[in-house]
Amino acid sequence: MRAVDIIMDKRLGKELSREAIGFLIGGYVAGDIPDYQVAAWAMAVCLNGMTAMETAALTETMLVSGARIDLSGIEGPFVDKHSTGGVGDKTSLILAPLAAAIGVRDPMMAGRALGHTGGTLDKLDAIPGYRTQLTVAEFRATLDSAGFAIAGQTKDIVPADRLLYALRDVTATVESVPLITASILSKKAAEGADALVLDVKYGSGAFMKDPLEGEKLARSLVDTGAAMGKRIIALLTDMNEPLGNMVGNFLEVEECLDCLEDFSKAPPDLAEVTLELAARMALLGGKVTNIEDGRALCAETLVSGKPLSLFLKNVEAQGGNVRQLCAMRRVYRSPFTATVRAARNDYIARIDAWKTGHAAVILGVGRNRASDTVSPVAGVQLHKKGGDTVQQGDPIMTVWGKDEASLAAALPQLEAAIEYAPTPPAKRPLVLKELVHA
Amino acid sequence: MRAVDIIMDKRLGKELSREAIGFLIGGYVAGDIPDYQVAAWAMAVCLNGMTAMETAALTETMLVSGARIDLSGIEGPFVDKHSTGGVGDKTSLILAPLAAAIGVRDPMMAGRALGHTGGTLDKLDAIPGYRTQLTVAEFRATLDSAGFAIAGQTKDIVPADRLLYALRDVTATVESVPLITASILSKKAAEGADALVLDVKYGSGAFMKDPLEGEKLARSLVDTGAAMGKRIIALLTDMNEPLGNMVGNFLEVEECLDCLEDFSKAPPDLAEVTLELAARMALLGGKVTNIEDGRALCAETLVSGKPLSLFLKNVEAQGGNVRQLCAMRRVYRSPFTATVRAARNDYIARIDAWKTGHAAVILGVGRNRASDTVSPVAGVQLHKKGGDTVQQGDPIMTVWGKDEASLAAALPQLEAAIEYAPTPPAKRPLVLKELVHA
Repeated sequence: MRAVDIIMDKRLGKELSREAIGFLIGGYVAGDIPDYQVAAWAMAVCLNGMTAMETAALTETMLVSGARIDLSGIEGPFVDKHSTGGVGDKTSLILAPLAAAIGVRDPMMAGRALGHTGGTLDKLDAIPGYRTQLTVAEFRATLDSAGFAIAGQTKDIVPADRLLYALRDVTATVESVPLITASILSKKAAEGADALVLDVKYGSGAFMKDPLEGEKLARSLVDTGAAMGKRIIALLTDMNEPLGNMVGNFLEVEECLDCLEDFSKAPPDLAEVTLELAARMALLGGKVTNIEDGRALCAETLVSGKPLSLFLKNVEAQGGNVRQLCAMRRVYRSPFTATVRAARNDYIARIDAWKTGHAAVILGVGRNRASDTVSPVAGVQLHKKGGDTVQQGDPIMTVWGKDEASLAAALPQLEAAIEYAPTPPAKRPLVLKELVHA
Repeated sequence: MRAVDIIMDKRLGKELSREAIGFLIGGYVAGDIPDYQVAAWAMAVCLNGMTAMETAALTETMLVSGARIDLSGIEGPFVDKHSTGGVGDKTSLILAPLAAAIGVRDPMMAGRALGHTGGTLDKLDAIPGYRTQLTVAEFRATLDSAGFAIAGQTKDIVPADRLLYALRDVTATVESVPLITASILSKKAAEGADALVLDVKYGSGAFMKDPLEGEKLARSLVDTGAAMGKRIIALLTDMNEPLGNMVGNFLEVEECLDCLEDFSKAPPDLAEVTLELAARMALLGGKVTNIEDGRALCAETLVSGKPLSLFLKNVEAQGGNVRQLCAMRRVYRSPFTATVRAARNDYIARIDAWKTGHAAVILGVGRNRASDTVSPVAGVQLHKKGGDTVQQGDPIMTVWGKDEASLAAALPQLEAAIEYAPTPPAKRPLVLKELVHA
């Protein structure tokens, strides 16, 4: 077998065998196949696609390239949630303790901000002392005591994905349904979850702008997960506006604490998406037999206060300082701040998620390259969202930049993110579609 | 400017600016842009193509990546011929001295065998003492004294092509009309020819199997050459059967000597293609005003014996031993030989060029990778070609292998190359099309 023949077959649009995919990816991880051959292959995959069989073979090849987390001896069921990434997308920090509170445990391997989207690990890093690099023993202990653990990918988990992702990032081969599918599912399979709820986002603030593209990815994830024997539900959700009112690392932790404390005051979009995802986690965890019961169980559980106490338990277990965290609420903000005000009397049609996310990167919330550091105290608070009315001069956003220059650079972009309309905008459904293999 | 954005634009099918192409290729040659990014870009070019503007920009960028041969002080006109490669394709060794004999000088940078096709330099290496690596001074002196010089590309001529070709070879990105166009024309522009005759081959023994694909390449070459201000004529010629009767390094030198000595005995297909190409060299060199006069002038000149004496003059000028060369005719053969005989009484429909070329590589004529060495004495002599009749047991080929094993391995492939037919095959036109920018 020769790498060049495998690349040629994919270039010609042929289906690659399981052996060919294993040869290429295995050889890449072993250092026998150079990155330029894998780069050419990845571009051919982007442009010619992969069949369901190929995608499953790639996922399994990547999975076996490294270690799996051993959850034996810890009580399940283990259900994880994964989002394809958005702006203000903080549901993990509510969902994981909520699931734990109903007895569904979440062994979550999360990621960092990249591009215009936020990253769960960067948000958690804003909590003083919180550690997201855990040993397997620490991960297991936290999962056992708090009912969930959230950690970054360790070096020995799916090394093929680490290598391949870094290569795709610099060769413009990130946006590919089969490559994204294999990247997500290989990591999710390695972390040991029995079942998976996927939040596949579409819209300006998502990686897939078009709902049809999002649906293709959701379909590929569900089909490939099914081929690997996983129960899996994917929701296709709207990411044209930031989710909730906060975009920023500490700001989002704070918003989640607020939601866990009093869910009735949660921003309606954040509450709806969270509850729909949670109901599916309850279903896949075997705690209910239908979605409606799942919603009811989760809503009840939120009122009980148990999710909040499990969240704080997790913070302690992962090294965070709960007392300090509580003292920082409402005050841990950058001193470089400004207010964006309404330019006229009108309806807000939408606060564009992509422009907000892009401005947030400038403010210091995210990163342009993997080596950039993020600011915990930068971000945007939205006082108005699509459907609200404003009078000229009303505050629409409070903005915090990591420094004066980033604040000045981000403000025009944030003003441009505000779309006005003379009439109330049509309501967009937050959950567009559900795809199930349960 | 960032390489990843340029790759993304090409992935999305956008037209790249001259600056973007210059940034990418210039950065690659300078070592600032890594090969994996160029590999991903090359695959995107293969699958999404390039516009005429992009192809011209790539060609010029590659040209300026290195030195050009300075022909000032030598009398012109300088017209070169280039073939896209075939099996038994030895016209260069007849054309260059023929052109020189009518006063058209050919500064030829030639290549080596790769894949199933032969290489002019490998053929010349079969002449004892002949040197194909010349200094610029030697190249100029030979061109001046013999009227033509044939040498390999020096290190400082189009380094971008050397790098890019080596990368394309291992990333399955060789077959791309714009990349082939830029590779050919950047080298041809660097060698200093004023005008160019291109032999674009199609058929089983060519890189372009389909005449339409061949025509696309011919069109791209002529248009790009025109954009660079070169006069250029491309002939689209048939490469479904080997050209002439000899396939092999010394065998082909010998066949050319025979043709130069007595053109009336030349195999008709070789004679026709050679004369058609020569007539265009005469036209572009300003020696005649139409193709018909060009044919007549070249035919006359061949009879004069002047091309043969210029060929031998070139051999001497490039270090070859003419006396030894003459003594080797008919006897310089591998001892590992066999005869392939007719399996039945029938017409020969065709001797398949690809299968013959592929068998020739096994025999030792060509190479599978750039580092392989070739045998001067291996090869195939065809006693019959398409349209001939055979009786069972008639010799169709004499075969020489570099060793016993290669001979044994090649024989079944050569038998499979013989296509029989119960009726005379339809005659294929040798020159299918002519594309001109003169």
